[in-house]
Amino acid sequence: MKRTTFASAQDVEQAFYEALERADLDTMMEVWADDEEVVCIHPSGPRLAGYERVRENWAQIFASPQRLQVRTSDLSVVQGMMFAIHNLLENITVVGEPRARPPVAVTNVYVRTSSGWRMLVHHASHAPGAPPEPAAEGPKILH
Amino acid sequence: MKRTTFASAQDVEQAFYEALERADLDTMMEVWADDEEVVCIHPSGPRLAGYERVRENWAQIFASPQRLQVRTSDLSVVQGMMFAIHNLLENITVVGEPRARPPVAVTNVYVRTSSGWRMLVHHASHAPGAPPEPAAEGPKILH
Repeated sequence: MKRTTFASAQDVEQAFYEALERADLDTMMEVWADDEEVVCIHPSGPRLAGYERVRENWAQIFASPQRLQVRTSDLSVVQGMMFAIHNLLENITVVGEPRARPPVAVTNVYVRTSSGWRMLVHHASHAPGAPPEPAAEGPKILH
Repeated sequence: MKRTTFASAQDVEQAFYEALERADLDTMMEVWADDEEVVCIHPSGPRLAGYERVRENWAQIFASPQRLQVRTSDLSVVQGMMFAIHNLLENITVVGEPRARPPVAVTNVYVRTSSGWRMLVHHASHAPGAPPEPAAEGPKILH
């Protein structure tokens, strides 16, 4: 049973990143919709589908002593009545490391449930360090 | 001006992959919402935001002689009145290569506009070749 009712997608997103930084599994799993359709994809990771599979994965991640600080930036929001789509960059620093990791491009999808807003999708992937110039010859893009 | 009215997110998705295989820029850009909020992220690529930036990128990709065949699988759908969230795997073969590339995990978000359904987000990232066993010790996941 969920104890927290999030009034907005923004509130869910804030709780998600706080739970991630604190490695707080209970709060993290409050964030997610209790649904077989939830999907979590970490950078270079497989698709993790379903609430229980997502929980197992966060438990595994949080069992590591590594702690992260996440600064989000470049937020773009499309807000509907029942869904909200957030696109942003995560700038992650591993505590104890001198500098931030390369940015991570993220799509977070939120859904309004009967008990408030929850996370439905977290899709994160490694992004190049800086945005390319449109005219520049970038790395070969397969698609 | 858009010429095509897609009756469903499924129709948009089918047109997207057909345009991708045919390297058909006009059809590809019919698929996308004509909106500053559209986002396209290719595997290991930066976030491309806005209709014009997305168009430039597809033009660059389709200028290559490389042609792709895409078989989608493992589709998971959350369908709302105004948004549809599709999560799936792309199994891509480069024409002329003997075997498929490793799978790509994809989140496609569709929005219902005044002129039918359009693509709002295409977020694609490299996925491992096979889903991991929950108990297995996988590669170190930063997050």
